[in-house]
Amino acid sequence: MSSTAGLVIPCTAAVAWEAGKPLVMERVEVAPPQAMEVRIKIKYTSLCHTDLYFWEAKGQTPLFPRIFGHEASGIVESVGEGVEGLEVGDHVLPVFTGECGDCAHCKSEESNMCDLLRINTDRGVMLSDGKTRFSINGTPINHFLGTSTFSEYTVIHSGCLAKINPLAPLDIVCILSCGISTGLGATLNVAKPKKGSSVAFFGLGAVGLAAAEGARISGASRIIGVDRNPKRFEEAKKFGVNEFVNPKDHDKPVQEVIAEMTNGGADRSIECTGNINAMISAFECVHDGWGVAVLVGVPNKDAVFMTKPINVLNERTLKGTFFGNYKPRTDLPLVVEMYMSKKLEVEKFITHRVPFSEINKAFDYMTKGEGLRCIVSMEE
Amino acid sequence: MSSTAGLVIPCTAAVAWEAGKPLVMERVEVAPPQAMEVRIKIKYTSLCHTDLYFWEAKGQTPLFPRIFGHEASGIVESVGEGVEGLEVGDHVLPVFTGECGDCAHCKSEESNMCDLLRINTDRGVMLSDGKTRFSINGTPINHFLGTSTFSEYTVIHSGCLAKINPLAPLDIVCILSCGISTGLGATLNVAKPKKGSSVAFFGLGAVGLAAAEGARISGASRIIGVDRNPKRFEEAKKFGVNEFVNPKDHDKPVQEVIAEMTNGGADRSIECTGNINAMISAFECVHDGWGVAVLVGVPNKDAVFMTKPINVLNERTLKGTFFGNYKPRTDLPLVVEMYMSKKLEVEKFITHRVPFSEINKAFDYMTKGEGLRCIVSMEE
Repeated sequence: MSSTAGLVIPCTAAVAWEAGKPLVMERVEVAPPQAMEVRIKIKYTSLCHTDLYFWEAKGQTPLFPRIFGHEASGIVESVGEGVEGLEVGDHVLPVFTGECGDCAHCKSEESNMCDLLRINTDRGVMLSDGKTRFSINGTPINHFLGTSTFSEYTVIHSGCLAKINPLAPLDIVCILSCGISTGLGATLNVAKPKKGSSVAFFGLGAVGLAAAEGARISGASRIIGVDRNPKRFEEAKKFGVNEFVNPKDHDKPVQEVIAEMTNGGADRSIECTGNINAMISAFECVHDGWGVAVLVGVPNKDAVFMTKPINVLNERTLKGTFFGNYKPRTDLPLVVEMYMSKKLEVEKFITHRVPFSEINKAFDYMTKGEGLRCIVSMEE
Repeated sequence: MSSTAGLVIPCTAAVAWEAGKPLVMERVEVAPPQAMEVRIKIKYTSLCHTDLYFWEAKGQTPLFPRIFGHEASGIVESVGEGVEGLEVGDHVLPVFTGECGDCAHCKSEESNMCDLLRINTDRGVMLSDGKTRFSINGTPINHFLGTSTFSEYTVIHSGCLAKINPLAPLDIVCILSCGISTGLGATLNVAKPKKGSSVAFFGLGAVGLAAAEGARISGASRIIGVDRNPKRFEEAKKFGVNEFVNPKDHDKPVQEVIAEMTNGGADRSIECTGNINAMISAFECVHDGWGVAVLVGVPNKDAVFMTKPINVLNERTLKGTFFGNYKPRTDLPLVVEMYMSKKLEVEKFITHRVPFSEINKAFDYMTKGEGLRCIVSMEE
């Protein structure tokens, strides 16, 4: 048992007081974990577009003050009542969605959309008692995605923590807890390209490149990157992307361009932008007879997916995925092992590093579209 | 070698001279098979909606005079040059689509959409020389779907013939050459419901009931039939359908009705009507996380499939199928064996029988929606 177990821990957190305003380093009090919860000492965190999106709060219900952050790694400080399988000192990845183990989704081999712990972007409190574990002089501070990793300590439902190999470097594997696994799993678990096949990727950000990394691992021979920003093409070559299409360079729909390049269509496609037209193109660019298109990117809520039914009837498959179809507790430890065995290359996604005190720089990099992932070190 | 090999065979055929007008029994001359072709003595044929649709010629380019018919059984009378694997006397099922064995689709395990012999509804001639093998006093008569089984003899590309067990009763297995296999394969090969699962079927005609038969064979426990015509419900019980939904009985979308019945959605759904709204309902009625919807019915060419992307992203799968994903030559003989081993029940689809001379009655039954399949016996 740690010396702080059962006590409130005062520590530093980066608090978002208002939409779009720089985070402020504050002293916060972190309450002990309640039943089925775990308190974690965060070691490293990184920034993902979902943080940025809810911090900007354009279009969603704003919920402030709030502690953002969900892509991270840490060490168990103490566990609440009823927690099984996690002990003080365990190395863990917090995950924005969970695995209760008991619901129909957790019991299904095909789903990872846990009924109890499924992502909830509107909730700012813990599930068990509807309260937050963060406060500043008695003022409650909202959680985000049940993780709130922009804090030296945080409290997380035990179903949202993957216990990983303690030898895995936490400053690297932290990015496996969201975006990289989302893209990787879309390819490895859902699209499942065969060796020697062709795969088209829409959007060459971190998620799209993680999906491409999955194609490289699968032995796909034609890894086609589609992006409207040609500046991303050079970096994408590191991820095995070996052909490029900029829709702006063509006066016909990009699905036709890809069909011409691939003798009728790509074997697989993966859409990581969330743009509705890219989604439609991704579906229509796959080969009839066997093509599979996988949607990853989350679109505007008013968007409508439209296609001629013959595109479906001609034996194309459209699939959606959430967190790469990985079950957080069961599967993430295995993704970490893929990195440990050097099958999965993770370092190349890390383009920036900053100390926690400079976390706002990570927001700047992402807003400007610079680099892929910025690691925030909590102890610097 | 048969005594008629190499000779023109005069015989009786039911010729469609005009759109929507009763077929006329005529004496036609059937030329010998050319390279890669086979001449077949048709034993039994049945009528499928595709025959009716092109005979009515509402919306398509009319092509007359024409000999319709594509669901049938027969015996090889003679073979053309280069034909391998088929001999005089072999029992065969003609198929409206083929399997050349050499194209990318035939070589793919996932596709049955042969590049060379894929269904072509507009072509009225043979592939090899662009001519017909049928004539009446020198007037060429058009083929239909490369099969034209409403004739005592017909010429078919060898890639469109499945050689079957000679012990199989031809007056029964003839209906496996189109609609029944289309529905059955949609379930067994594409939707693949698990034992104990729930499956919703849209459209309780022969194809939909064949799909339901697939669910019965798979051991699905909830087999939900959706149809706007409640008269079909009683018959559907024979096919294992054990719950019924008439969209007209509800003032909410049928996908919501099914989601309520099934605690969130059916495990699988199969759309066999071709109605675009039914297609959308079929997709949206499956459970998030693991639901798979399969589209079988062919819609109006102006129809557009529309859904909110979140319905896809929540881990639903949309798949299309053509001829139940069966490869005609490779797989149909195995479907016949499923019947021979009593796993697949075929007799219950046969509701009417007529002699060839009364083939127009089969059109009447279908136009009126009476029964499922009418077997036309060529020798009566």
